[in-house]
Amino acid sequence: MVVKSHLQALGLFVVALPWQSSPAIAEPPASGRVWTLDDAVAAPEVTDLAISGDGSRAAYLLRTVDLAKDQPIFELHIVNIRERHDRMVASSAFLSRLKRIPGQSSWSLLANFGQGLQLYRATDDGHISLIAESKTKVLVGSADGANFGYDEVPPMLVGIPFYDWSPDGKHLFYSTLEEMKADRRILTGAEVTAASARRRWSPQVKVSFYLRGETGEAVRIASAPTQDRVARYLGGLPKWSSNHIDYSLQAVDNPTPSAWQYRWQFGGSKSTLLPGGASLVAGEVPTGPHGGAISVTRIGGKPRLTEQLPNGTSIDYGAMNIALSGVGSHGFWRSADGAVVLAVRLLDEARYVLVRIDRDGKSTIFPAKNSLRHCAFTSDAMQGVCIHEGLVESPELVAVSTRTGSVRSVSEISPHYAAIKPLEMSTLSWTNSFGYTDNGFVIYPRGYRHGQRYPAIIITHSSDADQRFAAADLQWNYPAYLFAERGYVVLLVNDPSSFPSEALDRAQATWNSCDGRTPPWEVQRLIWLNTVESYRSLINRLNGEGLIDRDRLGIAGYSAGSQMVNVAVTQTHLFKAASSGDGAYLEPAANRYLQCSYRAVYGGAPGDPRAIPNYLALAPSYRARYTTTPVLQQLAEPRAGAVDFYQALQVAGVPTEITLYPGETPASDETHLFHIPSNRRAALVENLEWFDFWLRGKTPTSDPKRAARWKAMRSRAAVARKETD
Amino acid sequence: MVVKSHLQALGLFVVALPWQSSPAIAEPPASGRVWTLDDAVAAPEVTDLAISGDGSRAAYLLRTVDLAKDQPIFELHIVNIRERHDRMVASSAFLSRLKRIPGQSSWSLLANFGQGLQLYRATDDGHISLIAESKTKVLVGSADGANFGYDEVPPMLVGIPFYDWSPDGKHLFYSTLEEMKADRRILTGAEVTAASARRRWSPQVKVSFYLRGETGEAVRIASAPTQDRVARYLGGLPKWSSNHIDYSLQAVDNPTPSAWQYRWQFGGSKSTLLPGGASLVAGEVPTGPHGGAISVTRIGGKPRLTEQLPNGTSIDYGAMNIALSGVGSHGFWRSADGAVVLAVRLLDEARYVLVRIDRDGKSTIFPAKNSLRHCAFTSDAMQGVCIHEGLVESPELVAVSTRTGSVRSVSEISPHYAAIKPLEMSTLSWTNSFGYTDNGFVIYPRGYRHGQRYPAIIITHSSDADQRFAAADLQWNYPAYLFAERGYVVLLVNDPSSFPSEALDRAQATWNSCDGRTPPWEVQRLIWLNTVESYRSLINRLNGEGLIDRDRLGIAGYSAGSQMVNVAVTQTHLFKAASSGDGAYLEPAANRYLQCSYRAVYGGAPGDPRAIPNYLALAPSYRARYTTTPVLQQLAEPRAGAVDFYQALQVAGVPTEITLYPGETPASDETHLFHIPSNRRAALVENLEWFDFWLRGKTPTSDPKRAARWKAMRSRAAVARKETD
Repeated sequence: MVVKSHLQALGLFVVALPWQSSPAIAEPPASGRVWTLDDAVAAPEVTDLAISGDGSRAAYLLRTVDLAKDQPIFELHIVNIRERHDRMVASSAFLSRLKRIPGQSSWSLLANFGQGLQLYRATDDGHISLIAESKTKVLVGSADGANFGYDEVPPMLVGIPFYDWSPDGKHLFYSTLEEMKADRRILTGAEVTAASARRRWSPQVKVSFYLRGETGEAVRIASAPTQDRVARYLGGLPKWSSNHIDYSLQAVDNPTPSAWQYRWQFGGSKSTLLPGGASLVAGEVPTGPHGGAISVTRIGGKPRLTEQLPNGTSIDYGAMNIALSGVGSHGFWRSADGAVVLAVRLLDEARYVLVRIDRDGKSTIFPAKNSLRHCAFTSDAMQGVCIHEGLVESPELVAVSTRTGSVRSVSEISPHYAAIKPLEMSTLSWTNSFGYTDNGFVIYPRGYRHGQRYPAIIITHSSDADQRFAAADLQWNYPAYLFAERGYVVLLVNDPSSFPSEALDRAQATWNSCDGRTPPWEVQRLIWLNTVESYRSLINRLNGEGLIDRDRLGIAGYSAGSQMVNVAVTQTHLFKAASSGDGAYLEPAANRYLQCSYRAVYGGAPGDPRAIPNYLALAPSYRARYTTTPVLQQLAEPRAGAVDFYQALQVAGVPTEITLYPGETPASDETHLFHIPSNRRAALVENLEWFDFWLRGKTPTSDPKRAARWKAMRSRAAVARKETD
Repeated sequence: MVVKSHLQALGLFVVALPWQSSPAIAEPPASGRVWTLDDAVAAPEVTDLAISGDGSRAAYLLRTVDLAKDQPIFELHIVNIRERHDRMVASSAFLSRLKRIPGQSSWSLLANFGQGLQLYRATDDGHISLIAESKTKVLVGSADGANFGYDEVPPMLVGIPFYDWSPDGKHLFYSTLEEMKADRRILTGAEVTAASARRRWSPQVKVSFYLRGETGEAVRIASAPTQDRVARYLGGLPKWSSNHIDYSLQAVDNPTPSAWQYRWQFGGSKSTLLPGGASLVAGEVPTGPHGGAISVTRIGGKPRLTEQLPNGTSIDYGAMNIALSGVGSHGFWRSADGAVVLAVRLLDEARYVLVRIDRDGKSTIFPAKNSLRHCAFTSDAMQGVCIHEGLVESPELVAVSTRTGSVRSVSEISPHYAAIKPLEMSTLSWTNSFGYTDNGFVIYPRGYRHGQRYPAIIITHSSDADQRFAAADLQWNYPAYLFAERGYVVLLVNDPSSFPSEALDRAQATWNSCDGRTPPWEVQRLIWLNTVESYRSLINRLNGEGLIDRDRLGIAGYSAGSQMVNVAVTQTHLFKAASSGDGAYLEPAANRYLQCSYRAVYGGAPGDPRAIPNYLALAPSYRARYTTTPVLQQLAEPRAGAVDFYQALQVAGVPTEITLYPGETPASDETHLFHIPSNRRAALVENLEWFDFWLRGKTPTSDPKRAARWKAMRSRAAVARKETD
C-alpha cells in the first residue's frame, strides 16, 4: 500500500497542468518557496553533534559550500539550548569528530586551520587552542603523491586523522600519519598488481596510535601501514576500560575487513594480542539496562529487541524491526534513571529513532515525525540533542528528555531551507517476485494530481533511501527535489532486505569473503537480479495504481547504485533513460584488483572459459547489445570499466554519454562524492537535461554542442531501430 | 644451412666442459677479455654522425652511462679524420640531431646544458653557443605533468625538440613545445577514453614550426597539438626546395599514421594544403642517378633494384634483396661523379650497407664485414664516414671513398669494448612450415664445441635482429653476450618476411588500419602464429643439427617481442622458461584505447560474443591454462594487461614472476627502453638468474627471498603436474 501520508492528510486536490505544458519549475505554493539549483548545490549537512555535560549547550559541525570560492566549507556552531541561540564560532576547510571533552566545559574537534588537520579545543566563546599536534603531516586526498582519504573535501595535509577520549577524560587516544622514507625499490608480485590499480601514486604512509595520560606525555602504542583500513579509517576502534585500552588492527582485507584485537595497559610498555582470533569488524554491541548484550532476534520469524544476560536468560523488549546502527545513527547511553537509550534505524519506515528501554522490559520510541540523528547525551544521559530531519524537511536541532521522552525543537539549522515548502512524499514497502521485501519513498511532483500519470525516476544506492534531508550518499548528483519540482515522480529505492530468506545474507557473505558457499549464478541472482525484480515489482504496482507512466521511466544511482543501474538496463527494457555515477564494479576491467569478490560473482577471471558464461550473464559491457536504454555515466575518475561499458554501448548503437568531472588541478581528482560545487552544479544540470531529453523530449539548453550531440545519438538510434524492425 | 662463418674459418675445436660444471663466466680467451655485467649495463651506442663539408672532420654523439650518477650520459666527439684523432668536446644529459651546418665549418645539435633542450652550435675546439632557444619549455618524459616523449632518458625540459637546415644553410626550420593554459574542463566521450589510458597526467601541449631565414627573424608557420605524432616526433618531415618548404601534419592516427602535406613559400604568410590527400607516412623516396624514384621491384619473384624514370621506362641495377631504410640506416647522396650512394639494409644478411649505383646501371656494395650505419657524406658526396659495427664487434668510425669504394678504419669508438674477444656467431635463414622465410643469428657459447648440445635462448623483437652491437631495442635487458659467456646458445630471431606471399603484407595493413580485408583469425595466423612456426622450424632444425638441447629452451623479448613470447608460451610447449618485457599488447585490457587494431585481431571488444572465440584463440591471459612455461614479466610501468596475464598464470598454477622497475621518483617511471643503469643491471641479473634457474637448475644468488620464492613456485608446479598425471 502506498502511504501517501502528508498528501492525504492535507486533502489536497490541486488541479495540475499536464506535464507537456508545465513550466520548468512549478509555481511556488502559497506557503513557501520551491527548490532552486543553488539549493541543490549547497544543501547543508550536519556532520557531527555534541552536548555539554550539563546539557546547557550543544555544538555541531555543518558542512556547506562557499559558492564564490567553489569549495566546501565546514562551520562549528555552538548553541545555547535554553536560550535557543545558535552562533557560528569557527569555520575551516574541514572539521570533524566533534566531542565534548569529558569533565570539562569545552569541546574538542579535528580541524584544519592552516596547519593541516590537528586536534583543537574550542570554548563556547569561540577561543580555539591546540590539544595535540602531529609534526608529521601527510597529504591526503585523490591526488598525485597523496594518501587515499577523505571524500567530499579537496586534498589537504593531515596530522591527526582520529582521536578519542577515555570516558573520564583523563586519557587521550589519537592517531598520526607519517610518510615513510622509501628507497627507490623494485616491486614484485602483488605489489605490482596494487600499483596497476592506482590512478595516482601514493607514498608509503604509516599510521601510529598514541596514548596520552595525565602526565601529558604521549606514548606510541602501535603502528601499521595505511593499507590497514581498520587502523587508518576506523582509528583502531578503541574501547576504553578503567585501566587499559583495546584497539584493533586489520587481519583480512575484505570489503568488510576482519581485525585482531590488542590491549594496552595504562602505564604499560607493550600491547598484547587478545585471544579469540580475528573477527569481522562491526559496530560496538550495545548493552542493555541489565548489562547484557542487546540484539535483534527473530522469534517465530518476527524480529524482537532482546537483551542476552550473562546467565543465559534474555529479556524481551518487544517486537521491533530495527538495525542497531545506521548513517549518522549509532550509540547507546545508560541514563541515571536506569534506562538505556539506543539510536537505531526503523527498517520498515527507513528512519532513525531513539528507543528507551527500561529494566522492566518496556521499550519506547521517542516521538518524532522524521529521523533523529547524530544524537548526543549529557553525562547522566538524562538530556540529549539530536538533529531532526526528514527526506523533505530540513534539519533542526532538537532537545530530548530521557525522562519524559519529549522531543523539543531548539533551532533551525538552515532557515533558508526551512523556507522551502516541503514536497509531498510517502513511504513504500512491497514484496518482489522473488519473494523478498523492499522499501523506499515516493516524492510527488509539485502540484501532484491524483489520477494523472507522471514520468518517474528511480534513485538508488543500496540501503540509504531513508528519512534524511538531501542525503548526498543517495542523491549524489541526481537532483531529486528539482525532478519533483519539474513534474517527475521520484522513487528512492533500497535494495531488498534479506527477509524472508537468509539465503541473501549468505550470498552477501560469499561476496565479501569469496567463501564459495553460494555459487556465482546464485550470487548474481540474489544480489543484482533480486534488486532488479524489486524495481519491476514496484513499477508494476505504481503503474497499476495509475501514478507513473511506464513508458517514461528513468533510473539513476552512483557507486553501488551504478551497479544496479548498469545491470537494470542490460537485463530489462524497463527504462527509457539511465544515469550511472562513478562506478564500474562488475566490469571485467576490475577483476585485476578485486579477484576475491569477482570469483564470488563470476567464478574467475574474464579469460577463464568456466567464468565466461557468468560474465555474459551479468557484466554490463558484455550485455550492451541487449540494451535499449540511453546511459549517461558521470565520473570523478576515468575508470576503465566505465569506459569499456561506454564503448560497448556505442558499438551496440545505444545512445550513451560519458563525462569526467575534473579535480582542482590536473594532479588531483574530483572525489567519489563530489566536493567541488561547480562540478556538482554541472552534474546536476547534466542529469536534469539528460532525463528531460529522453523522457520528455526537451532539448538541453545549457550547451548547444550537447544538444547537437544528443540529437544525433537519438537519430542514429532511431535509424538503427528502424533497420532491425 | 647454419653459416658458422667465424668458427669454421678459425677451425676452433675447443674442449668445453659440460655446462653443469662450467664456471659462471668462462675463462677469457687468450686474445681478449670476456663480457662482464658492467659491459652489458654500459654498452656504448653511437646515436648520430656527421662529416664536415670538406671531409676533414667528423663528429658523433655517443650514448653511454655514468654508473656513479646512475644516469645515461651523452658525449659529443669530434674526430680529425686524417690524423685519426678523436676528442670528446662536450657532454650532456641528452644530445641529438647532430648535423654539420651547411656552408659553415661548425656543427649544430640539440643539447640540454641546463636550459632544457635547445639548439646549439659546436665548433671543433669545443666552443658551444646558442643558435635558437625556445623560451617556452615543456617537461617531457614518463612523469606526472610531462608530455610523453623520449625513451632512454630521464624526464627533462624541452624547448626545441626538432630542427633542420635547408641544403644551402640559409634557412633553419625548427619546432618548439608550449604548454597550453588549460581551464579546468569537464571531459566527454573520447577524451574520457584517452584519460583512462594515461598512467601519468599530461598538460595540453602545442608543437609549433618556425622558419628562420637570412634576416634572422623566425616566423611561426604552423602549430598542432602534440597528439599529432607527425608534428611532435617526426618534426613535420620537412622537405626543402629552393623557394619553399613542405611539411606534414597527421591525418589519421593509426600505428603508422597518415599525413597531409603543406607548403610554405619563403617570405610567404600562410601555408597551403598540397593536393593528393593524406598518405601513409614513409621515408623519403631516394632518387637515382637519372633523377627517377628508386625502388625494389619483384621481377619473376626476385627483388631487383630499379629506378623508375619519369618517361615510364626503368633502369635495372641488378638483383638485390634490400630494404631502403633501417635502424640508423637511411639516406641517399648524389655524388659529384654522377653516382648515387644509398644506405640500405641487406635483408638476407640482416646488415646495413652502402650501395653505389651508377648511371650505366651498375651497382656496387661497399666492402665491409659488418654493418655501416649513421653514414654521412661531404658536400660533394665523394667522401663519407660511417659507424662500422657488428653483432659481436664493437663500433668503429670508418671513412668511405665514393670513388674507390674503399672503407677505411679511422678510430675505435670504445677501445674498452674492442678489447673483448668477439663471441662466435653465424647468420641463419630458413623457411617455416607455413612457407614463410625468416632469418636471424646464432651467438655460440664461449668455448663452443661442435657436437655438444647447449641450452638455448631465443631473443626476438620484430625485425631488428641484425648486425648491430649490443642493440638495446633487440637485446633490451636480455644479456645476450653474458648468456653466451655462461654457456648458452643465443638465437636472435626476426619475424618472418612477407616472402613468398603478400598475404602477410595485407594482414599487416589490416592490423594497422582495421580495414577488415583480412579476417581476425587470418590476422592472428599470419602475424603471431606464423612467427611461432618460425621458432618451431628453427628449433627443429638446430635440434636436428645437434646444436641445441630442445629440453632446455628459453625465449625472451620486450615490447613487440613480448607479444611473441606470450603467444609462444600459450600456443606451444617448446620453452622451459620465458621472459616477457614491458608489453601487454594482445591483452583484452588494452582494447579500450586500441579499438581499431583489436578489431583487426579479435573482431571486437572482449565482451562481444562474436569476438570471444578469437580472444580464446590468442589472448595470452585467456590461454594461461594451456601454458607450462614459467614466465617472467619485467615492467617499466604497471601495465594492466601484464598483471592480468600474471594473475591468469598464477591461477593456472604456472610459475610466474612480475617485476616493476621504478623511475627516479614516485612521480616518474622507468622508460620502455630502460634508462636507469641500476635498473638495467638488476633486470639483466634477474634474467640471467631466471633462465639459469629454469634451464640449468641454478639457484639465484642475488637475493635469498627470490631464491625461496622461485623454489616454492617450482615445487608447487611439480606437485600440480603430479596431480594431473
